[in-house]
Order: sequence, then structure tokens, then C-alpha cells
Amino acid sequence: MKYISILGSTGSIGTQTLEIVRENTDIKIVALAAGSNISLLEAQIREFKPALAAVYDKEKAKELAVKVRDTDTAVMSGMEGLIVCSTDIHTDIVVTALVGMIGIIPTVEAIKAGKDIALANKETLVTAGHIIMPLAKERQVRILPVDSEHSAIFQALNGEGKNEIERIILTASGGPFRGKKRKELENIKVEDALKHPNWSMGRKITIDSSTMVNKGLEVMEAKWLFDVDLEKIQVVIQPQSIIHSAVEYMDGSVIAQMGMPDMKLPIQYALYYPERRGLKGERIDFFKLGRLDFFEPDYETFEGLKLAYEAAKMGGSVPTVFNAANEYAVAKFLDRKISYLEITDLIKTAIDMHRYRENPSVAEILEVEKETYEFLDRSLKR
Amino acid sequence: MKYISILGSTGSIGTQTLEIVRENTDIKIVALAAGSNISLLEAQIREFKPALAAVYDKEKAKELAVKVRDTDTAVMSGMEGLIVCSTDIHTDIVVTALVGMIGIIPTVEAIKAGKDIALANKETLVTAGHIIMPLAKERQVRILPVDSEHSAIFQALNGEGKNEIERIILTASGGPFRGKKRKELENIKVEDALKHPNWSMGRKITIDSSTMVNKGLEVMEAKWLFDVDLEKIQVVIQPQSIIHSAVEYMDGSVIAQMGMPDMKLPIQYALYYPERRGLKGERIDFFKLGRLDFFEPDYETFEGLKLAYEAAKMGGSVPTVFNAANEYAVAKFLDRKISYLEITDLIKTAIDMHRYRENPSVAEILEVEKETYEFLDRSLKR
Repeated sequence: MKYISILGSTGSIGTQTLEIVRENTDIKIVALAAGSNISLLEAQIREFKPALAAVYDKEKAKELAVKVRDTDTAVMSGMEGLIVCSTDIHTDIVVTALVGMIGIIPTVEAIKAGKDIALANKETLVTAGHIIMPLAKERQVRILPVDSEHSAIFQALNGEGKNEIERIILTASGGPFRGKKRKELENIKVEDALKHPNWSMGRKITIDSSTMVNKGLEVMEAKWLFDVDLEKIQVVIQPQSIIHSAVEYMDGSVIAQMGMPDMKLPIQYALYYPERRGLKGERIDFFKLGRLDFFEPDYETFEGLKLAYEAAKMGGSVPTVFNAANEYAVAKFLDRKISYLEITDLIKTAIDMHRYRENPSVAEILEVEKETYEFLDRSLKR
Repeated sequence: MKYISILGSTGSIGTQTLEIVRENTDIKIVALAAGSNISLLEAQIREFKPALAAVYDKEKAKELAVKVRDTDTAVMSGMEGLIVCSTDIHTDIVVTALVGMIGIIPTVEAIKAGKDIALANKETLVTAGHIIMPLAKERQVRILPVDSEHSAIFQALNGEGKNEIERIILTASGGPFRGKKRKELENIKVEDALKHPNWSMGRKITIDSSTMVNKGLEVMEAKWLFDVDLEKIQVVIQPQSIIHSAVEYMDGSVIAQMGMPDMKLPIQYALYYPERRGLKGERIDFFKLGRLDFFEPDYETFEGLKLAYEAAKMGGSVPTVFNAANEYAVAKFLDRKISYLEITDLIKTAIDMHRYRENPSVAEILEVEKETYEFLDRSLKR
């Protein structure tokens, strides 16, 4: 029996994780935590009967507690609630699928409590990789990647032991605006940017895919997760999203992981690693597929990717600024307060203006995030 | 230190194995054996200083013995010579790169003597897989594939333990006649068939690639090597020869091994498995490559592949007849005695006419080979 807790159970990854749980009889849910979607969380509580639930929003948590008082599930709230869920003694694996920096502290606490982490929260490694990875090593905890690219790399590393990596080939679909030039992106509307060609995901990550900021964040994550130099991570546009990523070894051999776009595969792989389980779903039909294409990213048009490499190279608190500024800018874009190209403009400004910290603690990371938000708020009002 | 013996050291795989040996200081050659090319074998003896050498042709062996009497290498001949080379007590790994059925007995003897086998001789598993695989298991000997496709599958299986295979995707370049229809192959000349688009190989295997009989033999090998049903082996045409083959698991995940076409990679992988060593050579440039194509094989035009599946399904002595008839027919084609399409015609006739044996011993396999040759000789003279 596997006992898991899901932070972010009402989001895209959370609900797909619960689909996996539904199809397997040997996983039990210990805790479910969400940001604010209490109606879905209530349904999940009734179906999966966790001992614990948490809602980050305190008012919503109170509401939920009333709704589920006929169940055996205890409802908690706030950061304390998330931490209780991620550190509960009965849990083996914590799926960290919360969006944003609120995922960092519960993840750190889960690692300290010796839990394996099925990591879907990008911010954790982007901003705190220098804290998370040594801590996971010290506590002998596994960081199991849940997104398709890092899971592909993780699968390609399987059984390779200490064989030297020459290159990580991080694939990208290129998003809905692949092939367009910067000029053509000036008048992009929210609706256009929300149309991803291959993957159905949350709104924020869909925008991040279209700007390729998402790929930039993945480059940063890959650097920490697989302990490789930035120079060894090559982003390759693979529009069909069939090759999910690959690893080239010192002998020139490239091991790639391929599959139809389906997040359930990396989720299930993380939960059962190194064992695979049967998974229904479409298989690659190479004859129908016909071809796979490869393109070099256009770093001029998709400036966010270039900025991500630069931020990762600067290190310290810069990736936090990059991430926070993007989060802020995407929210403003979705709110129709700024234009599409201003997303990367804001990231650039925030990086240029921020006060550098060499080796930020979790508290400093959160402080930098707050500063970045405040700075951008002020600069937009000017 | 690794101690290896090479059967077939003067052929394409043999000489490339010696290039690997030349570039690594921790491999020592114990024995070198060749069919008849004594001038190259002499040079190899002088460079690699093996304790033993063998030439299958007895007259040539005598000649060589005279030439190298100033060295410390003992020269043997015939099948006994090959067996001494493959079973010598100092050898850890035997590279079986002899072409044709003369490779079977020395391989069986090597396994009985507990040697790991770096297998490049196709006939061994095609004709005697039912003997070789159980024997290797019993003696706890590794069968390490040396050709690019099986090495790719072997690499894709690395670290997967008992995870269930859903499909083996065995790639094929399609050869020089890909896209042609049967009618267009009627007047193919030897020169045309010897032009392989991606790989530089020996003459016989180049013809076999053009007819796709080679892929058929590989299907049979894969069945034995990876213990999968024929129905799970899918041949996919991948003209660029970049994806060398792949394995699909029960969760729909496909692990593929890719690389530039270079036989040194699978050879080195077999010699050092599971460790990888650095290997100079061209790397995949995905941007230059641009695309990978996939096609379904044309089983009507490339009848040899269809016949191979049928022969494998019938099992018993049929794969031996398939292989022997093809060997015979390709030799006749290279001698300009028969036309290109008659190669598969002869295979078909030989299969139709032969007397089936259920579970042939090595002696029976060799008998079936002889019968096939004799039958085809008689039928061509009629």
C-alpha cells in the first residue's frame, strides 16, 4: 500500500493524480489540500475519504469544515494546514501540485519529515533548488519529477548509474506562436495565448508555454534536478510533443522518452517509480504520425527563454525575481492590464532593478517575491 | 582489465571492435579468428599480440603460421581453431562477428565455457535461438547484442527490470529501394543494391538491407533476445537511421535510443555494459537534422520481410531454411547468376519444399543448411 498526500488536489495535476488513484487499488489518500476550490475539494473528500484536508484560504476552510462535518476528515487552513498535510506521519509520498511559491515551505517541511516528493510545483526548484536538492540528499528523499519533460529525462536516466551526461535535450512544443516573429506578437490577445496546440493545462502555465517562459523555468528545474551545467541543457522545439525529452551520454547515445501527450503517465511513473503500471490511453502510431520535426528556438522572439538562461546563470535570487515577475505579469495579462510582449518587458525590468542575494534562504526567497510584486505594482502605476 | 576474443576480426564489425580496443587501455585481446583474410589478420596479430589466432581455411592457416612465426601467437585452423579461440580460459567476452552459420558452434562452446557473448553473428539466434537462450540462462552468461537495433532495444530496457513490454519498435532505414514498387525492382543490378543510404557494411548484409531480409532476421533475433512474441515486434521505417529502435512499455511510454549511424557505439556498449565510455564521433544535431520520418514497411514489395515473419511463426527448422536460402541466393545474385527478385523467390521455394524439424539440434540445423543449399543448387540447374 502507498499512502500519498496531494497539495493542490483541485488543479490539473491534482485531479489527474486522483484519476490514477481511482484506477489503482493500492494507493490510499492521506491528505488533500487546495488553495480555495472547496466545492471540488468537498467532492474529493467524500470520494477518497482522507484523514486530513487543508484549504489555504482561511475563510474557505471554515466553510468547508461546515460542509464536511458529517465525514471523518479534519479540515485545516493556511500554511499550517498545508504543512500538516505534507508532513503527516502516515504519508509516504507528497504530490506537490500547488501553483506558485506557496508550494515551497510545505515541500521543505515534507522533505525534512522524510517524505518522497512527486514534484509538480515548478517554483520549488526554480527559486529554492540550492536548498531543496542538498536537503533531499541529506534526508535521503527522492525528488520524483511529475511534468512530462523532467519525467522523460528521469526515465532516460533509469539504469544509467554514474554514466556521464553530455547533453540534456529538453523538448518544447513551441506553443501556439511558434514560427511567429516578435512583431507579430504585439497584438496577441488572451484568447490566442490560451490555445495550446498539444496540451490541456491550467491558464497560467498555458500562457507560460506560449511565451516559452515555461521552458525557461524547466531549464532551471532540470539544472537542479539532474545536477548538470546550464550549457549542457539544450532546448529543442519538437512541435508534435511526442519526444518528451532526452539525454545524450558521453558515448553519443541519446535515450529519449516518447509518448502521446498525457500527464497521467508522468504522474503514475512518479508514484510507482521504478515500477511501471499498465495505463490505458492512446499509443503512438508511428505510421499515422508520419514525422517528427525539430527546430531551434527563436530566442529573439521568445525572449522569456533567453532571459531564463540569463537568470539561471546569474543564480542566487535572480530566478526568484524571474519567476515572481512572470507570475505577476501573466496575471496582469490575463486581467487585460498589460499587452502580451509586456510580460517579458516586466521580467526584464524586475531583474535589472532588484537587489541581488547570493544564497537566499526560504524566508529571503519569499521576501524577494514580495519585493518584486511591490516593485512592479509601483512601476505600473507610474 | 577486460580480456576479449574476436571471431571474425577481419570483417567490418571485427575491425571496428579493434578500433575500440585501440582507444581503450583496459582491454586486452586474447584471440583473433578470421575466415580467410590472412594478410589483415597478420597485421592485427602484430599490433594486438594475441596469444591465439585461428583461420577457418586450413591452407590459409598454414600460410599465416609461417608468416607470424617470429611472434608469440599460436595459429590454429578449422572449426577446432575457432572453438579454442572462443573458449580460451583467459577470455571474458567473445565477440562473435563471423558471418554465416560457422559462428554457431563456437558460440555454443563459448557459452558452455561461461563466456559473455558480444553477439554480432545473426545466424546464431535466427537458427539456434531455442538452444542459445536457455543455455545462456543456465550458464548465467550475458548475450550482449552488437548490432545497432538490438543494442538500441537493450539500452531502452536498461533499468526497467521486470516492467512489461507492450511493443518493440524495430526501426529500419528501408534501404536504397524504399518507396519503390515490386515492378521497379525487376532489373536491379548488383551495384544498385550495394548502395546503402546510411550504413557502410559488408556486401552480403548490404544486399540483405536492400531486400529487408536483414530486418526479417533482426525480427527473429529480437524475439529470442528479448523473449517477446512476434506480434509485439513492429518494424517501422525510419529513413534517417537516427532512432535505432525503441521499446514501448505497458504504460504507453516509449524509450528510444538514438544516435548517428556508427557501429562503434553498440560495439563499445556491449564490451563495457552497463558502463558507458566516452566515444568520439559525430553527435546528433537536431536542428540540422530537422525531421525524422516514419513509414510502414511495404510487405508486398519487400516480400523478404513478410517471409521472415512467416518463417519465424512456423519456427523449428524454418528460420534456418530462410537464412540458408537467402545466403545462397544473395551469393548467386552477387555472382550475377540470378536476378534481384529471384532472391526471395528462392527463399520461398526452399521453405515450401523443406522437411520440417520441430526442435532442431545444432547438428540438425547445419544439416538443414546443407540440404537447403543442395536443394537450391539442384533446382537452379533444372
